[in-house]
Amino acid sequence: MGKIVLGMSVSLDGIAGSSRLDVPEESMAVHEAILGWQFPLRSWQEHQGMPGGEDTEESRMWEADFSRWGAQVVGRRMFDFGYPHWGENPPFRVPVVVNTHRFEPPIEKLGGTTYVFVTGGIEESVRLARELAGDRDVLIAGGVESARQALRAGLVDELALHIAHVVLGRGERFFDAVAVPLKLQPIRTIAGTGATHVSYEVVR
Amino acid sequence: MGKIVLGMSVSLDGIAGSSRLDVPEESMAVHEAILGWQFPLRSWQEHQGMPGGEDTEESRMWEADFSRWGAQVVGRRMFDFGYPHWGENPPFRVPVVVNTHRFEPPIEKLGGTTYVFVTGGIEESVRLARELAGDRDVLIAGGVESARQALRAGLVDELALHIAHVVLGRGERFFDAVAVPLKLQPIRTIAGTGATHVSYEVVR
Repeated sequence: MGKIVLGMSVSLDGIAGSSRLDVPEESMAVHEAILGWQFPLRSWQEHQGMPGGEDTEESRMWEADFSRWGAQVVGRRMFDFGYPHWGENPPFRVPVVVNTHRFEPPIEKLGGTTYVFVTGGIEESVRLARELAGDRDVLIAGGVESARQALRAGLVDELALHIAHVVLGRGERFFDAVAVPLKLQPIRTIAGTGATHVSYEVVR
Repeated sequence: MGKIVLGMSVSLDGIAGSSRLDVPEESMAVHEAILGWQFPLRSWQEHQGMPGGEDTEESRMWEADFSRWGAQVVGRRMFDFGYPHWGENPPFRVPVVVNTHRFEPPIEKLGGTTYVFVTGGIEESVRLARELAGDRDVLIAGGVESARQALRAGLVDELALHIAHVVLGRGERFFDAVAVPLKLQPIRTIAGTGATHVSYEVVR
């Protein structure tokens, strides 16, 4: 059975998103500051259909991670924010379980991505994702609220943090309202150009 | 001329100290959670006059860092908290400038440590430390308030973060009230047993 991995990009002060989603400029600035480490990677660019990018250890890490996921889980706010950008051939290429209060029928896109809406809470969303993933691992990709729910519910085997080299000072703090103390055992550390990547096993 | 290095141990959620210094048990718990990475290191144990410890890359990092400092700067609260523990042969072995509002004559200890009290603010404390350090580097060792003052005043050349593998959930957040956005360029990343060590150049 696959592992449940929570992937999260944060600033050095733990900001994982904008607390002002009503201000698009601010949301985009936070988004770029914490996720910008991906953009120069050759593997990431290839997945967007772009030629070029840098072939670094970080790029190979991204590729290796991506190939682990048999399904992904995203929260409703992340889905609503991302949906128009992800387009007709979304970057997931696997089933995506949307953890939501509002049921909708599945939406099938090109390239292997199907959005499936689950209203039974984070446990139910992760359970379905695990089924859909088969032997492969499940990535809980965010947003902040679904990620916290998963951590609090003890569903996470592995926490993959991408710590961007920036202090933002304001925004939504990922670790607020996470069950503490959280005991972690490091598995892998990679020094990247835009972020330090540290994966931890969650000690239960 | 030496560099001004700010060294800070933090939890993954950016906690660098207890906000309840009036509760000694809580202060000690936070202290151990974020500084505990040092205790198993052979180099650290040697400096405490203890035989043993683990001879790892992390231990060699600690030794190499320690030999850089020609002087250290500490804040008043850290001094008051640490003074009884540091004893008659303190672990600094160089002049220690105490950034304080309350003047006292210098206190000389064994092994090279002299505590010098400066009341002219963080700029004056760092200026004196730089003089005392000669060609070697200066470590601003904390506490949180003096560290923030130094960052805000633009005095810091290098930020040496020790990010412990723990989420604490409460305490004093290091990055609050730090001038933002803070631009950082990573210099060195070391995966440690108890913490991830990332040093950054502060981009001005």
